[in-house]
Amino acid sequence: MKPPVVLQELIEALRALPGVGPKSAQRMAYHLLQHDRPGAQRLARSLADASDRVRRCVLCNSFTETDLCDICASPRRESTQLCVVETAADLAMMEQSHAYQGLYFVLMGRISPLDNIGPREVGIDKLLRRVEDGTVTEVILATNFTHEGEATAHYIAEGAKARGLKVTRLARGVPAGSELEYVDLGTIAHALVDRR
Amino acid sequence: MKPPVVLQELIEALRALPGVGPKSAQRMAYHLLQHDRPGAQRLARSLADASDRVRRCVLCNSFTETDLCDICASPRRESTQLCVVETAADLAMMEQSHAYQGLYFVLMGRISPLDNIGPREVGIDKLLRRVEDGTVTEVILATNFTHEGEATAHYIAEGAKARGLKVTRLARGVPAGSELEYVDLGTIAHALVDRR
Repeated sequence: MKPPVVLQELIEALRALPGVGPKSAQRMAYHLLQHDRPGAQRLARSLADASDRVRRCVLCNSFTETDLCDICASPRRESTQLCVVETAADLAMMEQSHAYQGLYFVLMGRISPLDNIGPREVGIDKLLRRVEDGTVTEVILATNFTHEGEATAHYIAEGAKARGLKVTRLARGVPAGSELEYVDLGTIAHALVDRR
Repeated sequence: MKPPVVLQELIEALRALPGVGPKSAQRMAYHLLQHDRPGAQRLARSLADASDRVRRCVLCNSFTETDLCDICASPRRESTQLCVVETAADLAMMEQSHAYQGLYFVLMGRISPLDNIGPREVGIDKLLRRVEDGTVTEVILATNFTHEGEATAHYIAEGAKARGLKVTRLARGVPAGSELEYVDLGTIAHALVDRR
């Protein structure tokens, strides 16, 4: 016989989480009900709250609870630099590195002609209006080093250069902590060209 | 800078899920907010509903929305057989195998003297009262094949035999689909002894 309907529904709903298949969803549901109901209730509230209250910053598209995100609103950030990332998650990773003090612009993904996702769909027109504010002087391209990410970076670079802005790209190279023997050849080639 | 507080709280709350560390929690939170808000809202409702409405069957301890679970309430199940499992998740696995038509008893875990978990804590006294109903004639031990699971099975077997009941244990053997070369020696030894 099947578990109670409300439990089946929970197992099904857990599959909305990335990387969670039917087996993991079942394990998660039973774990929460057996060992951590307060945790389940807290998670329910957090999901509802975040889903209701998190929206996009009007200036940079990153996640915020107010019109303007903390970074765009901060007088301490370097407003001449604008770093372009594919997603708000990428922005969070950049911030966690503590290596950047400028502003951001979050694209709505990356250009992917095969999926009918063009420059307009990812918000590049909004980005190009944003960099014309007279303050931004450097656009730092931090899209992923995938085919789509590279194409997106290339497209933005053209537009930004046409507006007289300095355009830079994150360095490619050997990841920290890795051994050369296990690094792919393309990465080694790039690390050689960009050596310093 | 850190993400909005409500998003930080969501990342923290997601860590209640088993096997989810800080990196996965961050990935899950951003994925839901970026791509699947309806999924997040549905999961919030399911968690709250399940947490409120799922309780323990008065007879077998399995999860149910009513006093008696569907299995205990069913006239079609073989009421002379009682299968003892460690958790409600184990019961769900047994049911998914479609190989068993009897009733169940779900323990509250397994005996673990080092953690001060004895027979009373896992509900063996309730189990032994349950099997004295005059209907149950066979107790099938389906606790895990770990040290604690074996000790728990042994303890229950003593009590059930003392009450004149037939006691059986799930067969140990070579798992379906596996190659002998990769099976551990203890399992092969058991499969030889229990050959049929």
